[in-house]
Amino acid sequence: MNHNKISQRKIINDPVYGFITVPGDLLFEILEHPYFQRMRRIKQLGLTHYVYPSALHTRFQHALGCMHLMSQTIEVLQSKSHWITEEEQEGLLIAILLHDIGHGPYSHTLEQSIVKGFTHENLSLMFMDALNNHFQNRLAIANSIFRDDYPKKFLHQLVSSQLDMDRLDYLTRDSFFTGVSEGIINTDRIIKMLNVANDELVVDVKGIYSIEKFIISRRLMYWQVYFHKTVMAAEYMLINILKRAKYLAENGVKLFATPALEIFLANSPSSVDFQKDKSWLINFSLLDDYDIFASIKVWMDHEDRILSILCKNLVNRHLYKIEIQNEPFSPSYSDTIRTETSKALHLSNEETGYFVIEDNVANNAYNPNNDKIKLLYKDNHLKDVSEASDQLNISVLSTTVRKYLLGYPKNINIS
Amino acid sequence: MNHNKISQRKIINDPVYGFITVPGDLLFEILEHPYFQRMRRIKQLGLTHYVYPSALHTRFQHALGCMHLMSQTIEVLQSKSHWITEEEQEGLLIAILLHDIGHGPYSHTLEQSIVKGFTHENLSLMFMDALNNHFQNRLAIANSIFRDDYPKKFLHQLVSSQLDMDRLDYLTRDSFFTGVSEGIINTDRIIKMLNVANDELVVDVKGIYSIEKFIISRRLMYWQVYFHKTVMAAEYMLINILKRAKYLAENGVKLFATPALEIFLANSPSSVDFQKDKSWLINFSLLDDYDIFASIKVWMDHEDRILSILCKNLVNRHLYKIEIQNEPFSPSYSDTIRTETSKALHLSNEETGYFVIEDNVANNAYNPNNDKIKLLYKDNHLKDVSEASDQLNISVLSTTVRKYLLGYPKNINIS
Amino acid sequence: MNHNKISQRKIINDPVYGFITVPGDLLFEILEHPYFQRMRRIKQLGLTHYVYPSALHTRFQHALGCMHLMSQTIEVLQSKSHWITEEEQEGLLIAILLHDIGHGPYSHTLEQSIVKGFTHENLSLMFMDALNNHFQNRLAIANSIFRDDYPKKFLHQLVSSQLDMDRLDYLTRDSFFTGVSEGIINTDRIIKMLNVANDELVVDVKGIYSIEKFIISRRLMYWQVYFHKTVMAAEYMLINILKRAKYLAENGVKLFATPALEIFLANSPSSVDFQKDKSWLINFSLLDDYDIFASIKVWMDHEDRILSILCKNLVNRHLYKIEIQNEPFSPSYSDTIRTETSKALHLSNEETGYFVIEDNVANNAYNPNNDKIKLLYKDNHLKDVSEASDQLNISVLSTTVRKYLLGYPKNINIS
Amino acid sequence: MNHNKISQRKIINDPVYGFITVPGDLLFEILEHPYFQRMRRIKQLGLTHYVYPSALHTRFQHALGCMHLMSQTIEVLQSKSHWITEEEQEGLLIAILLHDIGHGPYSHTLEQSIVKGFTHENLSLMFMDALNNHFQNRLAIANSIFRDDYPKKFLHQLVSSQLDMDRLDYLTRDSFFTGVSEGIINTDRIIKMLNVANDELVVDVKGIYSIEKFIISRRLMYWQVYFHKTVMAAEYMLINILKRAKYLAENGVKLFATPALEIFLANSPSSVDFQKDKSWLINFSLLDDYDIFASIKVWMDHEDRILSILCKNLVNRHLYKIEIQNEPFSPSYSDTIRTETSKALHLSNEETGYFVIEDNVANNAYNPNNDKIKLLYKDNHLKDVSEASDQLNISVLSTTVRKYLLGYPKNINIS
Repeated sequence: MNHNKISQRKIINDPVYGFITVPGDLLFEILEHPYFQRMRRIKQLGLTHYVYPSALHTRFQHALGCMHLMSQTIEVLQSKSHWITEEEQEGLLIAILLHDIGHGPYSHTLEQSIVKGFTHENLSLMFMDALNNHFQNRLAIANSIFRDDYPKKFLHQLVSSQLDMDRLDYLTRDSFFTGVSEGIINTDRIIKMLNVANDELVVDVKGIYSIEKFIISRRLMYWQVYFHKTVMAAEYMLINILKRAKYLAENGVKLFATPALEIFLANSPSSVDFQKDKSWLINFSLLDDYDIFASIKVWMDHEDRILSILCKNLVNRHLYKIEIQNEPFSPSYSDTIRTETSKALHLSNEETGYFVIEDNVANNAYNPNNDKIKLLYKDNHLKDVSEASDQLNISVLSTTVRKYLLGYPKNINIS
Repeated sequence: MNHNKISQRKIINDPVYGFITVPGDLLFEILEHPYFQRMRRIKQLGLTHYVYPSALHTRFQHALGCMHLMSQTIEVLQSKSHWITEEEQEGLLIAILLHDIGHGPYSHTLEQSIVKGFTHENLSLMFMDALNNHFQNRLAIANSIFRDDYPKKFLHQLVSSQLDMDRLDYLTRDSFFTGVSEGIINTDRIIKMLNVANDELVVDVKGIYSIEKFIISRRLMYWQVYFHKTVMAAEYMLINILKRAKYLAENGVKLFATPALEIFLANSPSSVDFQKDKSWLINFSLLDDYDIFASIKVWMDHEDRILSILCKNLVNRHLYKIEIQNEPFSPSYSDTIRTETSKALHLSNEETGYFVIEDNVANNAYNPNNDKIKLLYKDNHLKDVSEASDQLNISVLSTTVRKYLLGYPKNINIS
Repeated sequence: MNHNKISQRKIINDPVYGFITVPGDLLFEILEHPYFQRMRRIKQLGLTHYVYPSALHTRFQHALGCMHLMSQTIEVLQSKSHWITEEEQEGLLIAILLHDIGHGPYSHTLEQSIVKGFTHENLSLMFMDALNNHFQNRLAIANSIFRDDYPKKFLHQLVSSQLDMDRLDYLTRDSFFTGVSEGIINTDRIIKMLNVANDELVVDVKGIYSIEKFIISRRLMYWQVYFHKTVMAAEYMLINILKRAKYLAENGVKLFATPALEIFLANSPSSVDFQKDKSWLINFSLLDDYDIFASIKVWMDHEDRILSILCKNLVNRHLYKIEIQNEPFSPSYSDTIRTETSKALHLSNEETGYFVIEDNVANNAYNPNNDKIKLLYKDNHLKDVSEASDQLNISVLSTTVRKYLLGYPKNINIS
Repeated sequence: MNHNKISQRKIINDPVYGFITVPGDLLFEILEHPYFQRMRRIKQLGLTHYVYPSALHTRFQHALGCMHLMSQTIEVLQSKSHWITEEEQEGLLIAILLHDIGHGPYSHTLEQSIVKGFTHENLSLMFMDALNNHFQNRLAIANSIFRDDYPKKFLHQLVSSQLDMDRLDYLTRDSFFTGVSEGIINTDRIIKMLNVANDELVVDVKGIYSIEKFIISRRLMYWQVYFHKTVMAAEYMLINILKRAKYLAENGVKLFATPALEIFLANSPSSVDFQKDKSWLINFSLLDDYDIFASIKVWMDHEDRILSILCKNLVNRHLYKIEIQNEPFSPSYSDTIRTETSKALHLSNEETGYFVIEDNVANNAYNPNNDKIKLLYKDNHLKDVSEASDQLNISVLSTTVRKYLLGYPKNINIS
C-alpha cells in the first residue's frame, strides 16, 4: 500500500461499531459525491421515530455500516483461504456502499403515492450506472457483482441474500437506535462463522445457534418495529397526504411545494421516462426528507380541508387509531367504521378513504423458497438451517404470518 | 396512585437509558403539545452530523433524558431525607422538560444571523408562560423553580447549575450519538452522590473522582466535538448563508422560502415585539430544521452568486478549510488570505466576508466564579472541588483556554 | 424511612446492572453471615471457565443480582396496583437471596460423586431454617414463600417458576461473563411486562416477543455454554476424580485433603443424618471451591496412577475428547473405544470407566407440563405463550432435545 | 498462511473485547503450557473482590487481553508504514503474553510476607528463560524485546512503558470487572493514535484528549480501586496472616498447609537459590490462590490465637477499620490505638503489630522522570504531553500524592 493512499484514509466515528475506516481513494471519492451525500438527508426508518424517538439514523450511516461489515467479512473469508482479488474487494465494498442508493425519502410511502411505477432497486441501478460513468468505468466490477452477472457467485450473495451485509447492519443498527435491544444480533460472531462452499455463501455449523437467534431477532424487529401499529399509522397518514396533494395538483389546485417535490406532484414519469431523459434522475436526486416535511408543514394551513386536517394530524402526532388482528375484519365492522367516520367528519365516500385505512401485512421468519441459509458440516456436506435446527423446524418457520389492520380517527367511537 | 393515572403511564425506548417513563398525566399532556412536539424537528447538535454522522438526536430526546435523570435524582435525594413534596417533584420534572424549549433550529447559528436580539433563554421563558396559560396555571411551580424565585434554592440548581440534569444528559447523550465514547460520564454514580446542604446542591465527598472525570469529559467534548474545526466550518457557512439571504430579502431580491422562514427573513422582531404581539411566538414555533435546510437546497440555484455558491458548498459538504491556533493570526496573514480569496472568486471586499471567517472560541473546564461544585464531607463541612482535588488545582482549571480560527475556501493556496 | 436505616444502606458495584442496593438492615446482616459469605468462594458455573475464561462469577454475585431484579419487579407490580406489604417485600428479597444457598462447590459434580443422596434444594431449606433460627424467626415469611406455603401464590412464582428472578439473572449474568453475548436477554423489558392475574404471575401480551427471545436465548445458552462439550469433558473428569478419591479413602488409602473435604471423603452422611446432627450442615458450609481444587493439585503426585493421571489432566487442561450426536452410540463403537483405551493405558475393565464416559443430556426449550408462561390480554383472558406465539408452536417447543456423548482420552485413535 | 495453521487458530470469548484470536501455533502451545495455565488460578486483583464482588478475573485473562491489543497495535503501526517483521510480530505477542508470568498468588501481599527478596519481574525472566529452553530457543526474540536489548527500541515500549499494552488492558479490564465504569478508557482510539518517531513509541497529536482521559482514569482507578481502604484492609490482614504462619512454622509449630505452600513456609530461598536450583521455580509454579486460601480456612481453628483470629476475620470479612488522611497520624494517636487494641485483645506489644497497621501509599498521575508520553505533531516535532496539554500542567501532574493509613480492629473505640 503506498503512502499517498494512507494519507487519504478516513476514520469515521460510529456509535454502533466504534470506528469505520474508509479503505481507499475511490471509495472516499464516491462518498463525497452529491448522490451519496444526499443519503445524509434520508432517514433509514422514515417515521419510526414517532414511536422510537432516537430512530433518526440515515441511509448514509447504514451504507457506511454495511461497508464496515463487508471489510470484516472479506478478512474472515480470506483467512479461510477463499481468494478474493484486490479488485473484487473494492467491487464488493462499492457494491454494498451503493446497494440502497435508489431509496427516496420515506421510501415505501413514496412508492405508494407520488413516485409510482418503479422500485428503489431500479433506481439504485440507474444511480450506479450514472456513477460508473462519472468515475470512468471504475465501478464496473461493483456493478457486475450487484447485478449478479459476475462469475464468482458468492460475491453477489455478500451484497444480497438471506445473510448479506445489508441485513446484518440494518438489524443491528435499527435495534441500536430504536433502543429495542432485543433485536441486537451478534454480527461479530455471525461473520466469523461465514464460509464459502461450491461458490456459495454458507455458515460453519458451529454458528447454528447464532443463526437461529438472527432469524428470531429479525422476526421480532418486524413485529415490534417495522410493523408497529403506530409506525404504520404514521406511514398510512403520510401516504394519504401525498396522494391528496398529488390529486389536488393534478386538478389544478395551487399548492406550496419545494421545487424538488413540485415536479413530482405535477408529473408522473415512468420508468421508461427515467431511462430516456437523464434529467429525471437528477430531479429525483434532489428530493429528500426535508422537501416532504417542509411542504407538509405548510399544508397544515391549506384551504383543502382533507389535506389540512391530515397534515395537522401528522405534524402534531394525532395519528390514526389502529386495530390489528389475525383475521380479516368483517365487512360490516369496517363499514360501520367508515360510516361513522364519514358522519363525524362530514366526508363523502371517496374522501373517507383518506381517513379509514384497511390493509394487511405479512412476514415469514425464514423463507426457504428464496435463497436458503446453508450450514457447512465438518465433513463438507451442506444442510439447510431449517432442517438442521432441532427446534426451528421448517413447517413452522416457513408459515407466513399475516396480520390485518384497520385504522381510523382516534375520536371515532364504535359502541 | 389511582388507576386512571397508571393507564396513562407511557414508557419510551431510549438507547441511552433503556426506558424512560413519563410519570403522570400533566407531563404527558405537555409532551403532546405542539410546542413540545416541534423539538422532534430540531437537532440537538445542529450540523455536527457532518463530522459525526450519527449525531442526529433532537432536543426532544434530550428533554426526555433530562426528565429521566431528574426522576432518579429526586429518588436519591428523598432517600437521603431531603423532603421534596409531590407538587415540587412535578414542578422539577416540568421545569427540566421545558428548560430548552426556546431553542430554534440550528440555534446558535440563528442567533447570529436572522433572529438576533434575544436568546433562547428569553424564548424558553415565553414558551413556558404560554404553556402555563394553556394549562391553567398548573405550571406555576415549575415556572418559579425555573426562574429561581422558588424558596427552596437547591431545586433550581437541579435545573440549572454546574451539575444540573441538563449537563448530565447532554454530555452523556452527545457522547453516545457522536460515538466519542471518551466523553461518557457515569450519570448513575454522580446522581447517587448528589446531596443537599444548607439548601444547596452538593456532592458527597466519595464522589470526588467522578466529578473530576466529569470536568475532564466536558472539556474533551468541547474541543473534540462542540469546537471541532469542521463542525465550526459548517456552522460559519450556515451563518453566512442566512446573513446573505436576509440581506437579499431586505434589499427586495425575490427568494424562495418556506412561510415560517420567510417571515423572519422579511422582519426583524425585537424582544419587545415578541412581548407585545403573541403571534411572534407562534411564528417562531413553526420554524424548525426542515424550513432552513429545505430553503437552502433551493437556494443552490439562486441567481445571487454568493448565495448559490455558499448553499452548494454546504449541501455538498465542501466546507471552509479551518486553521486553528493558540495565538491570534497575524493581520498580514489573514489579509493575504482575504486578498487571494477575493481574487480567486472575483469578490468585492464586502463579499469576501462571506468566504473568509476569523473568530476565536474559548472554554474553561471549571469556572469557580460561577456557581461552584461543592463537596460535602462526613463532618458536614463543604469544600469547593477545585480546592479539594489533589491534582485538578484551581489555577489550572480556571484558566480560560482560547483558540483562534481562520477559515477560507479549500482551494485557496497560500505559498 | 428512619435515618439509622439509611446509614446502613449499602451500594455494591456490579458490572451487569451498575449498582445494587442492599435495601435494609436485616438483608445486610444476612449478607454478612458466614453461610452467605461462603458463596463468594463457589463459582456459579464450576469449570466453565476452562472454555470461557471469564466465567468466574460466583453464587454470591448471582444472589445479589437476583435480589436486585426482585426489587425492580416489586416496584413494577406495585405500580400495576398489586399490593405487596412491606413484610412480604422483605420476605421476597430474602427468599431470592437465599434460594441457592444450598449449593456446594462444583455443585452438580459433587452431587454425582461425594455428596450423594440429597440435592442443593434440600440443603437450601436446611440453611434457611438455620438462618431463621439465628435471626430469631425474622425469616419466617421468606421461608414460607420459598416453600410455597404462603397464601399469595404469585410471590413464590417470583422466586421459583419459568420466569423467576433466578432465571432472569443467571441467563443475563452467565451470558455477560462467558462473553456469549447472544444469550443476553432484556430483563428490563421482561420485568416491565410482568403482571399478576388470579394470583398468578403472568406477562402482559405486549411482551410476547421478549418472551420468545427469552426462550430462544435460554436454549442457546444450554447448548452453547451449559452443555458445551469441553465444559462437560471437564466436569466428567472432576466427577471421576472425586469418585476415585472417595473409593481410595473408603479403602483406607492415605490421601491428602483439606479437613472440610476429608470428612466427606471419609463419610457418606444421608439426608437423615443432616437432619439429626446439625454439625453436618456446619461441615458442609466449610466446603468450597478452594478445598476441591487445592486437594486435586496435591493428588497430581499421588501414588495411585488413576488418580494422579486424572488430576494432572484436569489441572493442565488435557480433557477428554468428546463426541456428540443425536443418536446413541453403537455398542460396538463404544466397546472399541473402551478396549483401545484400556490397552493404551494398561487399565482393567473397571479402571477404564474412569477414562471413558458415556452419557446423554437433554433439554427442552419450554416445557408446558411444568408451570407455564401465561400471557395477559387486554380483555383479561390468559393464554399459554406456546399457543399465543405465531411461530414458536407448542409441538416444536415441547420436544425434548437429547444428545449423546462419548468421551475418552485425546490420544486414543480409532481407525 | 498454510491450511494447517488455520485449523489451529483458536478463538476465545472475552466479555471485554468480544473475541480474542490466538494467532499462530507457537502462541497456542505456550498457552497450553502448565506455567501459563497456572495463571488461570491467580486473580489479577487479589482480594479486591471483597469490595467489588465481580473482580475475580485472572492473570490468564489479562495476558490474553494484552496479546489482543498488541495484535491491533501491530496492525495500526504497519498501516502507518512502520515495518515490523513476522518474527518481530511473534516476538511482541509472546513477550506481552508472558510479561506477568512471574506473579505469584496475591502477589504484592506475598512479596511482603513469605516470598521476600525478589520481585515478580525477576521471576518473569526466569519463567521466560525456562520456556525458551523448553521451546528450543523459539522465544529468543520475545526474550530480547522483553529485556530491552533488541535493537528496535520501540518494540520494548509496546511491552513496557507509560502506554504499553499492559496498562491499556489492565485499566480496561479492571474497570470492567470491578464495575467502576469511570475507569474505562478508549483503547480503540488510543491504539489508533499510536505512532513511531525516531524509534520511539509516540502518540499522534490528535490523540491528546484521549491521553488526558487515560491519565485521569488511571489516577481514578488508583484511589477508587487499587488503594481503596477496604481492599487495603484485606490485604494487610492477609500479609499479617502469612507473616504469622511463617513465624509459627519457623518456630516449629505444626501447621496445616498444602505442600506447595508448606515449602515456602519452611524455607526462604533467595534469588540466588532460584538461580542455582531449578526446582525452586517449579515449586513456585505450583503455588496459587487455592493453596493460600485453602490453608487459611483451616487455620481458622488453629490453636495459635493470633493466627486463628486473623483467619476467621479474613474469611468472614471482618476487616480492619482503616482511617486515611493526607498527613501522617500523630504518634500519640497511633499509640493510643495500639494500647487500646492490646488491652482489648490481651496482646503483647509484638502481637499488637498483627492487629494495628500503619503505612502510607503514594501515586502520581504522570511521572515525566520515567519515560514520557510524547505527542507527534504534523510537522514531525515531538512534545511531552504534560507540556502540550492546556490544562494538565506538569507541576500539578508530577506531584506525588501520598496518603497515610491507620488500621485496627473494628470494635476498638477511641473516645
